[in-house]
Amino acid sequence: MNGAESLLRSLHSAGVEVCFANPGTSEMQFVDALDRTGLMRCVLGLFEGVVSGAADGYARMAGKPAATLLHLAPGLANAGANLHNARKARTPMLNIVGDHARRHLRYDAPLTADVPGTAAAFSDWVRTVQSSETIAGDAMDALAAAWGHPGQISTLIVPADIGWEPVAGVEPAERAKARAPRGIDDDMLRRAASSLGPDAVILCGGNVLESPDAMARLAGIAAKTDTRLFASGPLRRMERGNGRHDLPRVPYPVDDALAALSGFRRAILIEALPPVAFFAYPDRPSLLLPEDCETVPLADFDQDGPAAIEALADLVGTKPAPPRNSDPCEPPQAGPMDDAHVSAAIAAALPEDAIVVDERLTSATRAMPLSAEGPPISWLAITGGAIGIGVPLATGAGVACPDRPVVALQADGSSLYTIQALWSQAREGLNVTTVIFANRGYQILKQELFKVGQNPGPGALDMLELDRPVMDFVSIAKGFGVPGKQVSCPAELYHTIRTAAAEPGPFLIEAVL
Amino acid sequence: MNGAESLLRSLHSAGVEVCFANPGTSEMQFVDALDRTGLMRCVLGLFEGVVSGAADGYARMAGKPAATLLHLAPGLANAGANLHNARKARTPMLNIVGDHARRHLRYDAPLTADVPGTAAAFSDWVRTVQSSETIAGDAMDALAAAWGHPGQISTLIVPADIGWEPVAGVEPAERAKARAPRGIDDDMLRRAASSLGPDAVILCGGNVLESPDAMARLAGIAAKTDTRLFASGPLRRMERGNGRHDLPRVPYPVDDALAALSGFRRAILIEALPPVAFFAYPDRPSLLLPEDCETVPLADFDQDGPAAIEALADLVGTKPAPPRNSDPCEPPQAGPMDDAHVSAAIAAALPEDAIVVDERLTSATRAMPLSAEGPPISWLAITGGAIGIGVPLATGAGVACPDRPVVALQADGSSLYTIQALWSQAREGLNVTTVIFANRGYQILKQELFKVGQNPGPGALDMLELDRPVMDFVSIAKGFGVPGKQVSCPAELYHTIRTAAAEPGPFLIEAVL
Repeated sequence: MNGAESLLRSLHSAGVEVCFANPGTSEMQFVDALDRTGLMRCVLGLFEGVVSGAADGYARMAGKPAATLLHLAPGLANAGANLHNARKARTPMLNIVGDHARRHLRYDAPLTADVPGTAAAFSDWVRTVQSSETIAGDAMDALAAAWGHPGQISTLIVPADIGWEPVAGVEPAERAKARAPRGIDDDMLRRAASSLGPDAVILCGGNVLESPDAMARLAGIAAKTDTRLFASGPLRRMERGNGRHDLPRVPYPVDDALAALSGFRRAILIEALPPVAFFAYPDRPSLLLPEDCETVPLADFDQDGPAAIEALADLVGTKPAPPRNSDPCEPPQAGPMDDAHVSAAIAAALPEDAIVVDERLTSATRAMPLSAEGPPISWLAITGGAIGIGVPLATGAGVACPDRPVVALQADGSSLYTIQALWSQAREGLNVTTVIFANRGYQILKQELFKVGQNPGPGALDMLELDRPVMDFVSIAKGFGVPGKQVSCPAELYHTIRTAAAEPGPFLIEAVL
Repeated sequence: MNGAESLLRSLHSAGVEVCFANPGTSEMQFVDALDRTGLMRCVLGLFEGVVSGAADGYARMAGKPAATLLHLAPGLANAGANLHNARKARTPMLNIVGDHARRHLRYDAPLTADVPGTAAAFSDWVRTVQSSETIAGDAMDALAAAWGHPGQISTLIVPADIGWEPVAGVEPAERAKARAPRGIDDDMLRRAASSLGPDAVILCGGNVLESPDAMARLAGIAAKTDTRLFASGPLRRMERGNGRHDLPRVPYPVDDALAALSGFRRAILIEALPPVAFFAYPDRPSLLLPEDCETVPLADFDQDGPAAIEALADLVGTKPAPPRNSDPCEPPQAGPMDDAHVSAAIAAALPEDAIVVDERLTSATRAMPLSAEGPPISWLAITGGAIGIGVPLATGAGVACPDRPVVALQADGSSLYTIQALWSQAREGLNVTTVIFANRGYQILKQELFKVGQNPGPGALDMLELDRPVMDFVSIAKGFGVPGKQVSCPAELYHTIRTAAAEPGPFLIEAVL
């Protein structure tokens, strides 16, 4: 067997089952080995940002890393924006990146560029394989780094010749054993317990939001001590809906966030950092908690947030709050495509067990809070602010969970960075319903422009409009093999989501706002 | 005026007239300043790879740099693949990249990442502005670095707060004065002259291929001394067709390249490096010249290739060859969509003064050689092997030359990395005719797979097929506001190119192979 096959067999023995790929010539030995071994499911992306975003969506739902297969420095750079998002989400991901054969690197071949430097900007762990003797062990080290606590982005660079060379065997699965979380500090636990109260807030992220038990325990603590709760930081995945307890998110607009967090004297952090504004603005602070607010870091990202919450609940003697159930909101019958009606149509349409992928900011702003009243769902959001994650993330979630409907709530401007992912949805036959909020502009940037411009003129606003020409998302989807429909009334939006989610295969809805 | 306005006014005074942009919140002060000053034409791209590829196409045709406006590390990474291509082309380009305000950088905001590290991987020159006092001067230094000899990729990182702050004035245009080329060495010139002969080859690139005079002088030298000529290295721009002398390119397939260069004892390099294989392969050398071939580096990239050729011609006493004219090839009347017919249809259809953008490798392989017999045209090719350049490059060329028709010869797989550029073509009303060669697969990779795989199986080949589902490029174009047509016969291909190129505005032709 050659180096490429040894690497793939080793990773598979340790649990890696899917490879999202956009390969080039320097990765042909991996394509060949993927075929010959037949061990991994290969999902082809038309662009590397599709690959990295899909690997993120897969890992968020499968709870384990996928591999990606990327081509040299430009391919890795194309994957970079969604690697950034995955890194902020602390999603485990293992990138295998081909480089030129070692003897070829000294020449200025057209594709020669700085692969390690490109990798460093968007990875937590980077290694270049130095020998076919070590290729499988290096891959297992990369997997162990990725699949630790927290998850990390590992990038393994493989010179082409090392993939060709014959090797003796595979690496035992044990080498890829993931790091266990660091224990909770007893003093910090006592400090957190004594900090609870009406002038305190608990800010949670990471694994807490994936654990309905942890959120029920938090609700129990909050009910007894009158402490406020917020979800803070990157929203990798949140379990929501009936049977689960809801945590509000710290708002995006800086003034709303400052208002939401004003007045707190103590903030207990559980897999969360002190919240920071998305951007800096003139005359606004960067940090969102009051200046005199004491922070209590109960669990960092390398610790187990749900375990910390269980210990805290035990210490203060609270039980988990009982499951919360309520009737879902009614679908709108008629009315304008305004925020209230569109939000209600979406929240009412979400089917049981749906995976919601959320890359929107100014549209359907009430859909997420309303969804707390509906059936149980998983909610995955953009985590690092690098737009172009939604369509790929939905693709990867669909690969991980073929039996669950995926509904992607997608801003129009952001969708156009990686719209090619629609084709992978069609190729893989994934049940993904993409709702494009077609407001024909970068709405959020128009709001931001007014924060810096004295009085933005027509030229500046024109740079943020997407209406000249108007894009036809149904045609774009058709071009990529995905059927679609334009809708312009809330009841139709509701019914079209219901129908599309109940049927197999992808569908795109252009919701004209 | 604020820092952003000072920067823009300074750059404009030194000749920068166009800004290709995909801005975010950290660049809103630039959007505002672009609007208020009204000095630069702003071209919006839906994705950063569109922006960098278009800036490359603009600079290749305008002969001077455009500015780009990009958003933080993920935006810069998205631009990376086409920055790589531009860097290999030695195209002058000036990137302005926003970063968070300085006080904000210490926190882990969602979009915080390593902007200088990302820039370093794809730039020749990088600087982060440290103060509003220096912003305009820094920008002029960046422009001088970009616009030197050779052209470079300059990346200037501007923390948002420095763009907001008030500044005193602008920087004089003189500061951005471009470097002059280094002189030609007399000894090297004499050595080159004595190297000419039937067992010698002259390998040229860069500015030589843009100069019909230089190519006529080369043809004169070749005719008298029986020296062979090749265009080698990245093909940034080549002036071709009637009245000009043609240089064949070193072939892409490694065996063809080795055969073409076998037997030469001396190679004179003029703005070219010793040619290297695109990729390394088992049992093939990396360098393409015979091992015992002596190289004579007459002009490096920081020297003036056309001046070196003039001096060489004077030394050996040759005159420029007289202008060469011939009848263009006849358009095919009927026949299959095979390589010969498709090549002839394209070569015959190219209108006078066309700008041809070339991102294809396995389709229409005879179109370029045949075009030597047609009307005068400019030919721009992919230069760094990072696919996804064609549609953006054509967009930028169209912005630079509104009175010249642009014809993009575009592989289907490569087009899908940056297909969003079609919308910018529609928005700007550019006369770009894009011919998609729809062979429904990564054909070149299938050929490469057979070089590494013992016997590629169906799973491996399936990873290189784009036919499940078949993409409909006419629908995709329609979605982006560009009309199109599918053609499946060579005569129809010819007529459709002629018609589209004669009419204003963009058009897409899906040539079904």
